[in-house]
Amino acid sequence: MSSPKPQIPNSKKRDQPGHKLLAIPGPVEVGNNVLEALAQPPLSHVSPDFTRIFQQGLLLSKKVVGSASGQPFIIAGSGTLGWDQVGANLVERGDRVLVLRTGYFGDGFSSCLTSYGAKVTTLKAPSLGEPVSLGDLESALLGQNFKLITVTHVDTSTGVLSDIKSIAAVARRVSPQTLIVLDAVCSAGCEDIKMDAWGIDVVLTASQKAIGALPGLSLLIASPRALETYSTRTSPIQGYYASWQKWLPIMEAYMAGKAAYFGTQPVNLVRALTEALQDIMKNGEEGLALRIEAHRKAARRLRAVAAQLGMKTLTSRGAEAAGLTAVWVPEGLTATKILQRAGAKGVVMAGGLLAEVKDRYIRIGHMGVSVVDERRGDIEKITDTLYAVVTELLEEKRPEPATS
Amino acid sequence: MSSPKPQIPNSKKRDQPGHKLLAIPGPVEVGNNVLEALAQPPLSHVSPDFTRIFQQGLLLSKKVVGSASGQPFIIAGSGTLGWDQVGANLVERGDRVLVLRTGYFGDGFSSCLTSYGAKVTTLKAPSLGEPVSLGDLESALLGQNFKLITVTHVDTSTGVLSDIKSIAAVARRVSPQTLIVLDAVCSAGCEDIKMDAWGIDVVLTASQKAIGALPGLSLLIASPRALETYSTRTSPIQGYYASWQKWLPIMEAYMAGKAAYFGTQPVNLVRALTEALQDIMKNGEEGLALRIEAHRKAARRLRAVAAQLGMKTLTSRGAEAAGLTAVWVPEGLTATKILQRAGAKGVVMAGGLLAEVKDRYIRIGHMGVSVVDERRGDIEKITDTLYAVVTELLEEKRPEPATS
Repeated sequence: MSSPKPQIPNSKKRDQPGHKLLAIPGPVEVGNNVLEALAQPPLSHVSPDFTRIFQQGLLLSKKVVGSASGQPFIIAGSGTLGWDQVGANLVERGDRVLVLRTGYFGDGFSSCLTSYGAKVTTLKAPSLGEPVSLGDLESALLGQNFKLITVTHVDTSTGVLSDIKSIAAVARRVSPQTLIVLDAVCSAGCEDIKMDAWGIDVVLTASQKAIGALPGLSLLIASPRALETYSTRTSPIQGYYASWQKWLPIMEAYMAGKAAYFGTQPVNLVRALTEALQDIMKNGEEGLALRIEAHRKAARRLRAVAAQLGMKTLTSRGAEAAGLTAVWVPEGLTATKILQRAGAKGVVMAGGLLAEVKDRYIRIGHMGVSVVDERRGDIEKITDTLYAVVTELLEEKRPEPATS
Repeated sequence: MSSPKPQIPNSKKRDQPGHKLLAIPGPVEVGNNVLEALAQPPLSHVSPDFTRIFQQGLLLSKKVVGSASGQPFIIAGSGTLGWDQVGANLVERGDRVLVLRTGYFGDGFSSCLTSYGAKVTTLKAPSLGEPVSLGDLESALLGQNFKLITVTHVDTSTGVLSDIKSIAAVARRVSPQTLIVLDAVCSAGCEDIKMDAWGIDVVLTASQKAIGALPGLSLLIASPRALETYSTRTSPIQGYYASWQKWLPIMEAYMAGKAAYFGTQPVNLVRALTEALQDIMKNGEEGLALRIEAHRKAARRLRAVAAQLGMKTLTSRGAEAAGLTAVWVPEGLTATKILQRAGAKGVVMAGGLLAEVKDRYIRIGHMGVSVVDERRGDIEKITDTLYAVVTELLEEKRPEPATS
């Protein structure tokens, strides 16, 4: 008897029209099946069909981050809405929060929590491209009581990967009452996350990066401890759209296979998300591990080509993300020039996000179907294009030999 | 010579797969061209292509609500996020707000603003199915100073249409400093809205109703006066994701044809939205007026069939919405029974949203392409189905004649 292999819907679906290849850190290329799921006529948000799809999406979102006990939330919004969910539901005015900062997105999370009344202490990485030191973390946690710490798993502005397993272990040991919040926007689906096993209290992410769906959905998983903190808060929740008071009963209902209404679910985005999550989890945890390894391999390939071109990574050794590579532009070139030339060759790469070095580095995303489906040849196209563009631009810069 | 007939982009697009006809008050059926726009491979949110599409969407969203001077915001989220935008940006703790309540959504708006510290006074309609009386409004405004009033243009729970033109006129005359906020979630695209001419300060809506796109986008237009109120507030904005401090520079940039980043735009939803908005505005204001009239006509047809069946509308005479009909279920039947039977015949209608009379009325949505593209035959299918279902169910209830 044949094993119950998941059907690969790609084969029976139409191909995507020709387009520039997205090699940015989100949105990413999506599978034909994901686009096809997106393109179905809309369902009623309270229909049995949608309820099944949403239930499936909620259940699968937990699996991707290694949580059996967590409560998922999937809400229309960008990844940023996850920060607001943390601020609105877990922070009360005056609460102390420790933000581990490895780039732009640490600053953003900090601003967000401040707007909800948190007193934020920022723990910066020693220098650009490095993760926060575990020793500094331990000192910070010993020096003060924090209600929660936030960690950007992969900061999309720098490509720095934080060792969340070790960070969580330190936090749990030194300050066991502190909630651990992981911003996994650029990591869920391509980096290892064991939410339950490592004792993480919130994992938040978005649909358009390594999850491999379309932008427009905030995904968040809250541990029982995080929900306990939420439900025992003494001050009212600030705001409405990000309030778990509104969304928790809705998510619980759909998890139980029943429809419920607060805001209208973005039914098409959810359908595409569930399709993408099914792809990720179709071979269980083993498949997820292979997927993560495939992303690491793509990252190594890209770094090898960059090295050939004399382009150094922004990120210190050992802290390189699997889904995103940030590299310095060679002497004499600018990010703008490289991006323009790559775009003309049909590959869309991203510029810098850090104001101080904006035009001095580029970011290349390698996530989702571009990595997983080798038949597409996306990674070859990206590495070939990078090589050709930088070689050409350097060539053009070389002074003409004087005519004899 | 033939009149300038609008091009029908449908013809060159693939047809939608067979599916149950959505006759709920959102999500609604969408045109093939809208679904096709949705289904394009994702664009970079900062690419020139997306920038053009987003710019176009922003400009067109103003036209649909009759605003030349307003500032549009289009943000990933459900319609509810529009309430939060009002609460976060225009309300400061202790501000007095008058909510005109004609159903469930007035209560929701009220809860939302309360969560941002507003002191809400609710002005209720005299009874279920009626709009708020203009006399009561005038008294309320004379009795107290309100920073803003909110009006649900069409309350999706009751189908009650509020006469926003007259309401705005009263408010401007009696309390000229009060901001006028219109919840147009179930009206923009199928009811007359002259934002600038009538002196409305905020119009908020969503993508999945009469706008005719897919759910997942909050649309909001703010008048110069509303922006002035926002920019002169003395307390910090509450929250982050709904903050205009974050989004205003982004929207201004895209309006000017330049990309900018705060959160990742839901590029596919925006593309479909722009397509839908182009359909709405392709024949200018005249076309928009014809579109609104087409919705009124569909509403009259539906009410006529309901009347034949002895089903009274929930809504008082003159306050019937153009895009939504709420009717009482005939004696002896339940909403559940009617919805089930209609669903089995391929038409999805909606139940009640008001807890106290939930199973005693049904709601039928007639918005967007179902109304505008008569070749689809959607309105016939909806009216025929309603007629057949109710007739059958009444027939089945009739006692069997005694066998002789």
